[in-house]
Amino acid sequence: MSSTSQITYRGVENVVKSVPSDLPALGPLDVLIKITHSSLCGTDLAYIKYGIALGHEGIGIVQEVGNAVTQLKIGDRVGGGYHRGSCGHCKYCLSGQDIWCYERIIFGEGDYGNGTFSSYYIGRETYVHKIPEAIPSEFAAPLQCAGATVYGALVGIVKPSQRVGIIGIGGLGHLAIQFASKLGASVVVFSHSANKEAEARSFGAAEFYSLDDVSKMAAPVDLLVLTANRYPDWSKHLLTINGFLVKSVLARTGTIIPLSEPSGPMDLPSLQVFFEGYNVRTNLVASRGVHNDMLEFAARHKIRPTIETFSLSENGLREAVEKLKAGSVRYRAVLVAEENH
Amino acid sequence: MSSTSQITYRGVENVVKSVPSDLPALGPLDVLIKITHSSLCGTDLAYIKYGIALGHEGIGIVQEVGNAVTQLKIGDRVGGGYHRGSCGHCKYCLSGQDIWCYERIIFGEGDYGNGTFSSYYIGRETYVHKIPEAIPSEFAAPLQCAGATVYGALVGIVKPSQRVGIIGIGGLGHLAIQFASKLGASVVVFSHSANKEAEARSFGAAEFYSLDDVSKMAAPVDLLVLTANRYPDWSKHLLTINGFLVKSVLARTGTIIPLSEPSGPMDLPSLQVFFEGYNVRTNLVASRGVHNDMLEFAARHKIRPTIETFSLSENGLREAVEKLKAGSVRYRAVLVAEENH
Repeated sequence: MSSTSQITYRGVENVVKSVPSDLPALGPLDVLIKITHSSLCGTDLAYIKYGIALGHEGIGIVQEVGNAVTQLKIGDRVGGGYHRGSCGHCKYCLSGQDIWCYERIIFGEGDYGNGTFSSYYIGRETYVHKIPEAIPSEFAAPLQCAGATVYGALVGIVKPSQRVGIIGIGGLGHLAIQFASKLGASVVVFSHSANKEAEARSFGAAEFYSLDDVSKMAAPVDLLVLTANRYPDWSKHLLTINGFLVKSVLARTGTIIPLSEPSGPMDLPSLQVFFEGYNVRTNLVASRGVHNDMLEFAARHKIRPTIETFSLSENGLREAVEKLKAGSVRYRAVLVAEENH
Repeated sequence: MSSTSQITYRGVENVVKSVPSDLPALGPLDVLIKITHSSLCGTDLAYIKYGIALGHEGIGIVQEVGNAVTQLKIGDRVGGGYHRGSCGHCKYCLSGQDIWCYERIIFGEGDYGNGTFSSYYIGRETYVHKIPEAIPSEFAAPLQCAGATVYGALVGIVKPSQRVGIIGIGGLGHLAIQFASKLGASVVVFSHSANKEAEARSFGAAEFYSLDDVSKMAAPVDLLVLTANRYPDWSKHLLTINGFLVKSVLARTGTIIPLSEPSGPMDLPSLQVFFEGYNVRTNLVASRGVHNDMLEFAARHKIRPTIETFSLSENGLREAVEKLKAGSVRYRAVLVAEENH
């Protein structure tokens, strides 16, 4: 191995700092990846305070492989960073739901010294994914968590005849519009920002409504995808009089799909949930097979995140963090290693 | 038509009273059913205050049929009472989900003068169901709502490899144990009443735990069926320390299935729901095709409610209502018409 030291970026006293460290030896199934691009997710912000190595949407080039690796070789362009390991023998692993393995390693649960905001990331065969040629690295990065999250939540659930409602246009939302549209559904977007309508339509939205006035809706939606970490004000969207539902954004038997870690209680109106036959379906990023399918699907359908680039440096990362905290990233901040910038 | 008058039982000033009325003329698809048995459901109690004709788990004999009826004839033994009509042309009706039709008529939503606690009930072809010979009428009655509710919630959802948790042994719970067990699952029962263990096992439970101490559980369950109208104390059943889940009755990706109208908020712990991948799936009794399947399944698997009988009279009904309110019916009160009692 040519390099034995690297820079990782992690939270130190709630600020992102560059921290030099030595690279550990590779295990038999490990691959050493020189990071070229890594994008910033809200989950990174939540973990700054824990001091772990940040970054879980990384793209890079395989530099070295462990002695048991058979599926990747030096020079391959790969991506990953959220899902890092699972036991391989439990019911979740054996049914393609390995992201739910009780012994899983995911970003923020184990592997704390290793992240994709760094010069090198050590991934494990089958937990890093070859990137289709058609997807440039800067656009592939946000697919590793945001793209996988959206596709994992929708695939096999959304039917082509359905109306899919998406609340919020951000890192997740702007990809959800594209994936849902390419999955064949009619996409209905809800946002507080009226000035995002044209962009929502360019992503594939068929209809656009202000979150504050849904009265003009032609028909309710069959799925309601929540892309923000706050749940919506249900009383505005499930309109009730004397406890009886009179107009709803969500059709009977509809499904509510929260895509990100909640910052507050769900506060679902239980009577309406019961009598309207609503369901709640949860998803966490994607298991490995779904992740591979997502990359192929995104390449074939030309799904592409809208990005802003920053340099993969202490300053670049701090700048991106501040912009994400302020809610002004359109729509994913991609950090690019100096030699690629 | 030989009879033009009848007695219905309905709430009058919050007390069940017998009220004489005239029978309306039959519509083309209507069938006039002489009620022999009708069982009492918690939903009846909730509607006493509204003064509507009560009863929606009725069994009887067809006395007369409308001029367009082709599937039923005089003398047939039929059951029904909850689901009474739907439009026949919407997406719900055309996909076998007719119970969710926006123009549906169900007990408590329309058809207020007609109930199965009465001498006659007017049903509609395809909304009343032929009863398999193997099921005696007194046991068939509780299947019309409670049985359909349980089967409708589980069929197509529960897999034979799964552990199905059922909270509560009552009118719904004692049937849920039987249906889940015959659907091939391993059934785990939770109850506050330790003295119900032997009975739970006789219904098909493989394991039994006190709701107050689930620490002895061998493994979490994949589905959690709530049979009571109060949601459980999640903090006891999804054990957390500092906000992190350390032990749960519900396995990752598990589904919570509320079976009856809630009397309070669901108060789901949103962080655990998200990170454990929990889902909520709602069901309302059963659409017509599922109802027919349920009757055939119950007959073939000898699923039988445990019942107490009362006379179908003002006194009998009042007695059953008081007993149900006190929570002491084991497990379904069946009112039997005088001539059959």
